[in-house]
Amino acid sequence: MDEVTGAQLIAESLKAQKVEYMFGIVGVPVIEVAMAAQAAGIKYVGMRNEQAVEACRLYSKFAARPSSLEAIPSVIEKAVRTSMYGRPGACYVDIAGDMVNAKVDRSKVREVSCCPPPPVSLADHDEITKAISVLKTAKAPLIIIGKGAAYGRAETVLKEFVEMSGLPFLPTPMGKGVLPDDHPNCVAAARSRALLQADVVLLLGARLNWILHFGLPPRFNPDVKIIQVELCPEEMGNNVRPAAALLGDINAIVTQLLACVRKDGWKYPFNTEWWSTLKEKIAANAKMSKALALKETLPMNYYTVFHHISQLLPHDCIIVSEGANTMDIGRTMLNNYLPRHRLDAGTFGTMGVGLGFAIAAAALEKSENSGRRVVCVEGDSAFGFSGMEVETMCRYNLPVVLIVVNNNGIYSGMDPKTWKEMAKMGDLTSIAPPVSLLPEARYDEVMTAFGGRGFLVRTVEELRSALQLSLSDWEKPSLLNVLIDPSSDRKQQEFPWLTRSNL
Amino acid sequence: MDEVTGAQLIAESLKAQKVEYMFGIVGVPVIEVAMAAQAAGIKYVGMRNEQAVEACRLYSKFAARPSSLEAIPSVIEKAVRTSMYGRPGACYVDIAGDMVNAKVDRSKVREVSCCPPPPVSLADHDEITKAISVLKTAKAPLIIIGKGAAYGRAETVLKEFVEMSGLPFLPTPMGKGVLPDDHPNCVAAARSRALLQADVVLLLGARLNWILHFGLPPRFNPDVKIIQVELCPEEMGNNVRPAAALLGDINAIVTQLLACVRKDGWKYPFNTEWWSTLKEKIAANAKMSKALALKETLPMNYYTVFHHISQLLPHDCIIVSEGANTMDIGRTMLNNYLPRHRLDAGTFGTMGVGLGFAIAAAALEKSENSGRRVVCVEGDSAFGFSGMEVETMCRYNLPVVLIVVNNNGIYSGMDPKTWKEMAKMGDLTSIAPPVSLLPEARYDEVMTAFGGRGFLVRTVEELRSALQLSLSDWEKPSLLNVLIDPSSDRKQQEFPWLTRSNL
Amino acid sequence: MDEVTGAQLIAESLKAQKVEYMFGIVGVPVIEVAMAAQAAGIKYVGMRNEQAVEACRLYSKFAARPSSLEAIPSVIEKAVRTSMYGRPGACYVDIAGDMVNAKVDRSKVREVSCCPPPPVSLADHDEITKAISVLKTAKAPLIIIGKGAAYGRAETVLKEFVEMSGLPFLPTPMGKGVLPDDHPNCVAAARSRALLQADVVLLLGARLNWILHFGLPPRFNPDVKIIQVELCPEEMGNNVRPAAALLGDINAIVTQLLACVRKDGWKYPFNTEWWSTLKEKIAANAKMSKALALKETLPMNYYTVFHHISQLLPHDCIIVSEGANTMDIGRTMLNNYLPRHRLDAGTFGTMGVGLGFAIAAAALEKSENSGRRVVCVEGDSAFGFSGMEVETMCRYNLPVVLIVVNNNGIYSGMDPKTWKEMAKMGDLTSIAPPVSLLPEARYDEVMTAFGGRGFLVRTVEELRSALQLSLSDWEKPSLLNVLIDPSSDRKQQEFPWLTRSNL
Amino acid sequence: MDEVTGAQLIAESLKAQKVEYMFGIVGVPVIEVAMAAQAAGIKYVGMRNEQAVEACRLYSKFAARPSSLEAIPSVIEKAVRTSMYGRPGACYVDIAGDMVNAKVDRSKVREVSCCPPPPVSLADHDEITKAISVLKTAKAPLIIIGKGAAYGRAETVLKEFVEMSGLPFLPTPMGKGVLPDDHPNCVAAARSRALLQADVVLLLGARLNWILHFGLPPRFNPDVKIIQVELCPEEMGNNVRPAAALLGDINAIVTQLLACVRKDGWKYPFNTEWWSTLKEKIAANAKMSKALALKETLPMNYYTVFHHISQLLPHDCIIVSEGANTMDIGRTMLNNYLPRHRLDAGTFGTMGVGLGFAIAAAALEKSENSGRRVVCVEGDSAFGFSGMEVETMCRYNLPVVLIVVNNNGIYSGMDPKTWKEMAKMGDLTSIAPPVSLLPEARYDEVMTAFGGRGFLVRTVEELRSALQLSLSDWEKPSLLNVLIDPSSDRKQQEFPWLTRSNL
Repeated sequence: MDEVTGAQLIAESLKAQKVEYMFGIVGVPVIEVAMAAQAAGIKYVGMRNEQAVEACRLYSKFAARPSSLEAIPSVIEKAVRTSMYGRPGACYVDIAGDMVNAKVDRSKVREVSCCPPPPVSLADHDEITKAISVLKTAKAPLIIIGKGAAYGRAETVLKEFVEMSGLPFLPTPMGKGVLPDDHPNCVAAARSRALLQADVVLLLGARLNWILHFGLPPRFNPDVKIIQVELCPEEMGNNVRPAAALLGDINAIVTQLLACVRKDGWKYPFNTEWWSTLKEKIAANAKMSKALALKETLPMNYYTVFHHISQLLPHDCIIVSEGANTMDIGRTMLNNYLPRHRLDAGTFGTMGVGLGFAIAAAALEKSENSGRRVVCVEGDSAFGFSGMEVETMCRYNLPVVLIVVNNNGIYSGMDPKTWKEMAKMGDLTSIAPPVSLLPEARYDEVMTAFGGRGFLVRTVEELRSALQLSLSDWEKPSLLNVLIDPSSDRKQQEFPWLTRSNL
Repeated sequence: MDEVTGAQLIAESLKAQKVEYMFGIVGVPVIEVAMAAQAAGIKYVGMRNEQAVEACRLYSKFAARPSSLEAIPSVIEKAVRTSMYGRPGACYVDIAGDMVNAKVDRSKVREVSCCPPPPVSLADHDEITKAISVLKTAKAPLIIIGKGAAYGRAETVLKEFVEMSGLPFLPTPMGKGVLPDDHPNCVAAARSRALLQADVVLLLGARLNWILHFGLPPRFNPDVKIIQVELCPEEMGNNVRPAAALLGDINAIVTQLLACVRKDGWKYPFNTEWWSTLKEKIAANAKMSKALALKETLPMNYYTVFHHISQLLPHDCIIVSEGANTMDIGRTMLNNYLPRHRLDAGTFGTMGVGLGFAIAAAALEKSENSGRRVVCVEGDSAFGFSGMEVETMCRYNLPVVLIVVNNNGIYSGMDPKTWKEMAKMGDLTSIAPPVSLLPEARYDEVMTAFGGRGFLVRTVEELRSALQLSLSDWEKPSLLNVLIDPSSDRKQQEFPWLTRSNL
Repeated sequence: MDEVTGAQLIAESLKAQKVEYMFGIVGVPVIEVAMAAQAAGIKYVGMRNEQAVEACRLYSKFAARPSSLEAIPSVIEKAVRTSMYGRPGACYVDIAGDMVNAKVDRSKVREVSCCPPPPVSLADHDEITKAISVLKTAKAPLIIIGKGAAYGRAETVLKEFVEMSGLPFLPTPMGKGVLPDDHPNCVAAARSRALLQADVVLLLGARLNWILHFGLPPRFNPDVKIIQVELCPEEMGNNVRPAAALLGDINAIVTQLLACVRKDGWKYPFNTEWWSTLKEKIAANAKMSKALALKETLPMNYYTVFHHISQLLPHDCIIVSEGANTMDIGRTMLNNYLPRHRLDAGTFGTMGVGLGFAIAAAALEKSENSGRRVVCVEGDSAFGFSGMEVETMCRYNLPVVLIVVNNNGIYSGMDPKTWKEMAKMGDLTSIAPPVSLLPEARYDEVMTAFGGRGFLVRTVEELRSALQLSLSDWEKPSLLNVLIDPSSDRKQQEFPWLTRSNL
Repeated sequence: MDEVTGAQLIAESLKAQKVEYMFGIVGVPVIEVAMAAQAAGIKYVGMRNEQAVEACRLYSKFAARPSSLEAIPSVIEKAVRTSMYGRPGACYVDIAGDMVNAKVDRSKVREVSCCPPPPVSLADHDEITKAISVLKTAKAPLIIIGKGAAYGRAETVLKEFVEMSGLPFLPTPMGKGVLPDDHPNCVAAARSRALLQADVVLLLGARLNWILHFGLPPRFNPDVKIIQVELCPEEMGNNVRPAAALLGDINAIVTQLLACVRKDGWKYPFNTEWWSTLKEKIAANAKMSKALALKETLPMNYYTVFHHISQLLPHDCIIVSEGANTMDIGRTMLNNYLPRHRLDAGTFGTMGVGLGFAIAAAALEKSENSGRRVVCVEGDSAFGFSGMEVETMCRYNLPVVLIVVNNNGIYSGMDPKTWKEMAKMGDLTSIAPPVSLLPEARYDEVMTAFGGRGFLVRTVEELRSALQLSLSDWEKPSLLNVLIDPSSDRKQQEFPWLTRSNL
């Protein structure tokens, strides 16, 4: 009789579903699962922090508890499949501790093969026709590219569609890079105006949630017509009733739209008032942004920092980002040129995910020897959520470039001198602003503590030199602790067009 | 200032979403909602029983609690829309009692128009091609028609496809009537053989759950190829990996398949071994079933009862059914001829839903003056779950024909004489079989208590006469209390091909 | 090897915990459990309706799912124990269907003996002293007797305490009968005044929830001092901060209080203004109530009905009640003389529980041959929730006396003539008041349909005669369908002191 | 009109309940709450990591969402009260973001005063008598002191009881310090033998869960009699049926027991076989433990490290601890001398809580100028969960002494040389043991990065010197990174009496 343990079944079932990596923190009885995973050819990355596992069930698309060892392979297949089919999402499989070391005769366990790629569906022909006809009537059309377009791998056909149709486009935060941010049709730098004045929006795999101001006035034209291209039927019509409802796979539907446009050769002309107003706004914003970026006063401001980072990053790097101002401003200043090369805190602004994302990406790029860098841009507060994971980077020699944009606080902080004076005045728990962190904290030394490279950066020269050095080292992670003006945030108020609510 | 109450907003929002009926039981503060609904032109049906409303949240596709009066219209629109888009399902809106009588200035409430019909998507062309090619190689093909085909209103195109392709088909319980049960291609009467020997199955909107034996041996051919036509991506590949995965709207996809078949004129020939084996099995089963139906011994058995009911029911009647044997055997004996004319206890075998379904259907048919009858066939135990709802039928003069197939118990019961003897032997709670109900209980008198027609039926003649009388009365409900052999179930064991596990 | 099935383990574990009755509806695989229960000497009562079992987990004090057959006895012990220890409550044990027929070697199963009665604790001596001292300062003291006093079996010592202390008392709905309602110190008939004017309240096992108006103005004196006697620490201080917090077993604490009073011989004098005002109000209310009760117009009103029922019921009968007006008014008119002889819809006013309560009580009284009657007083709407359970009463020959107080609706209804006229005017779903039920519905015939006694009652004479006959029959259940004035409710508005909001 | 915001109401309500500290991470709209808290006189400590707040609802004793601003004070009072009354536990109040900045007229908000201390109840006299009588018959009695005794502040009376009765006692992990660990009656050093051979156990506020091996064989005598002293009725009888069930406040009940013992002068004699066997075992264990502690080989082992720490720590320090071996072994080697001076990972072994506990304790001691030190002893893996909180310690100048016992892994690790060799052999994610962390990671530099003191410790001399220096600095936190033998764990297997399963 050929017996197999629960741990082995878990590992082999994951392997059968082509899972390549497992991330975790061992303890009894997770050790056995981690070791079985390695034995089955799955790579294991030991992390430093984890959340209450049972609680994540609440946030999962599918959750199940196998009732017997024999059920493990099919439950795992269903979890993996469900995580990818339809709208992607995390799945949760809860396996009782007793099962891990229990044994069963292998012949009793039905093998379950790897699930195929997600099935694809197309939009209804009539809706396609309607969509094209709405587009053709538009005076101020706009494409919004959401993360659904990235997940749906629609980049090739979408590029052709944008170029053939001549339409301006705008990516959402997670849609950045599906088309390059420097594409001539990209109007991200005139985001507010584009949203406000568009009369027809082709919404590609994006949700009309708070990130898009629910598609409603005052941020949208009250008479805007939305052509909604969407994978998930229940999402169709959320907040705004669509002028055309194109349900199905984003890539397939853009292909359908392209076929129409190609057939009749329609193109939105460039010499329109709409293009003029967008281009004018882009130029004005670029000018102001550049003025800020080139300011030579110290400490540096956000724009200066991102301006120089942007110049030095390779176009094929993977950008991971989290924070408040750091993520918001960084999003507008750091270009993405390739699809699915950007990971950030997402719709819910979840803090603490950045370093984990960076580790996962770096482990993969390293094992594939891809030559692609992972660059992680963090606010100082955001870094605190999972900063100890730099030990994980060092342990596995993952050459992540970690840039902490450090303003001594959340939203804004205090300079060291003011802080010291305040500390003399009484108990800091009573008087320190709740947004303040320790001024000029040496996050770079958290990296050197584990053998990585650390840089304390105060000037443009230090920034450029440290970043170049970091990018040239393929063996170790680096951390650039970039000290900026702690009141940086408040100064921005003078330029309301740049603040979050106007982006 | 034009003020509006929460109750009015609820009513008007439902009306705006084209809700026509509200069902409920009033109490404080539901009265206000019910009255506002009537005032807004929604019909209100007062029922006799309800379940803990809050608990149904667990079983709902979408649940929400408006945080303010202003939010009511959009929450209701989302609930109604979500209930119909994608895989249909119940939605739950929880409105705090305080809100019902609270007031708000009407001008502050954004109007939300009625959501459009569900969006439609098509299958990928390549998968269509693959599906057709798999079908053409089949030696023993079979179409399984599920409730998804009924919800998707695929009947017209499906009829054409079946007739053009010449394929045999089998409906699931909720798929009955999409095509008529007496269609020459219907092989329902050879269900077990059809499932077991088919080498290619075209699965139309049906799930491979316990009702279809999970699509696995020993009830299915281990090498069967499944062509899965399915609305819900996460359902694709459940239990069996499909040979072709056709994701999208059932009606649209059958249209795609039809176009292919029509184009090349392919047809599965009738003179095959497969058709012969199916037809032979159908004939053998029909013979045995008829033999049982025509047995003249009293009390009657299930087959006799359903045989005569079947002969008398109009083809356009709506059949509602629940119970154990009554629903199982009735499903095979009572034909459906029209789509969406059948309602039963569904995937989970939920008891107690039948009378509610019948009331809802009858209220609608009556108000539309459609001339269609609602016939509700219940087991005696099933009737007990919500039998008091006959008062509701009488109160609103809904001419439901209710047939209680009464075997004095659940699965089986005792005859009155044996019961009486047993009762002398001790405390019935200690000795009565847990399956037994009171022998020859006069369920018909529960109906006459409220002014409806009641019939105690013991013979074929009484059955036919009572049913004809009931069908001729359009003013009142009727209840036929059909006494059958209480050990009817056990006798069936002699004909294992007819029992549940073999159907 | 001595094997035992899951069903047997369930049955034997329940038996070991001294469970005497099981109530249920069989189906696969509940049949096996029910049969194993009978085999183990547990009585089984088959019911006609049940709620979604899984949903009740939400409302349970403790819920568990045994992970193996071996765990069943200890999980059942814990569930039974938890249901009785501390604040009593329902517990939920979810046993996977597979387990019922699975087998295990009996020697592997640890036996778990019956849990002992709940442990008892006493109040802190200082708080007892404080409570007594607060009581002694009171000008207008009041004891409120809650269901905690009934659960805690405090009746004997409480009677002595009331009589020795001379304090007026008031039972909550579920506290009725702990002391007899006709006790000279009972001031239930002056409830509103007693609550409003009391300056010290001794709260015995009652919660300051909506039933007691949260202990707050305008229904309570804003300066009232609450001496809270309570089993559950988390309940202490809810809504009102107690002047003394007596935590522990109600019976034990009243014994402590009694010891103090007995020791120093303190007694609240009868010749106080407080007693005068209470007695005066009682007399005035009794007069008005009697005037209503003796009105000779037909149809009868609530007061007439309850007046005569009250005269005929044996003092030791168990009164079960549910409904709106029926339960509220019945509570004031039907006296309880013994503790734990009353069951009603409880804090949440849950409808549909009455017949189940009556069946459970009657099965027990019958098997104990106690000579006690079970009388179930239902509103007509309440009866509809589970009316089919009369079949259960008939099946097991349980001599429940069921009185349906029938006003043709919820809160109020329509007379038959008006109803008929209205029916001619259009679709009843559009125009019938949501509160209306079928006028003069023959609920009595629902009982006769199953072999019980039924009475249609319109007059005092019919009422008295039917009730006397019913009470004299110990073999069968009876149902008195008492037709009262359908507009009875509205007339009561003239006597606001009698309506719910003023009780 | 005097308006108040939601943020102010939250702050003022917490202040009214005598809440002194708020811990959090600001973001929109938590900033407003934090600032309002400081304005109301509550101290605010900004942390670096937090868990998904909504998820903790699942683990809370009470959860509520105020439905209006007016409800905030009473919901907060109930949450605070419930957290302390009965069995203490976390409570969760969920306040909608909109409410924080919403305003209400202050006059509409009912003030809610601070809840009084928890009510107290006593055990039943008969059970006390029974308990004493069981104790007197014991040949091998044992007191187990649980965290309930600490929460119940029973130390004074318990000391008197132990000394008057002469009974041996054993603290649970969270019961350590209620009586000093060096008390002559403490038999912690013979834990396994004491549990196994005791014939009567007086269980004071401890649960028979996995930490106490469920009170069952093979770790307990199968015939042991348990006298259970317990606050929570539902806990009474869990796993073992008590010989006496003393329900109520631990302090009050020990007072009752003491009164009995004092009255009749009973004392368990010291010259018994039981005391001899315990003392003999204690001496033998002490000898072996000392032998390990005095081993001079390097790297040091756990016993050497804890031996020297133990010698230097002030008796009134607060010990915080988490980890696997570090917590387990540290618990046996580091004495507690005062009640409620120890905080550890608790029943569920939750990692990541240590630094938060230390910060909270240190903030309090500092503000009270108590002269008490907070010493936090962490495993290296445990430190990783929330290591970034050292920045918080530095920011607020909290002089925590943090000792990281570093064995390069979880349970065990690798030495730097072996690690380097392994790294050359392939991808570390494939070959590194899942338990390994980076060898000789410089956790001390994580502290110096933020301005605290850091020490790398390899020898006894370094350990003693670093600890003395740290204890003498009252301004800053320190971190001692104590490198021990990475295979320390495995060597312990030679002394199975010391490993976890035998403690």
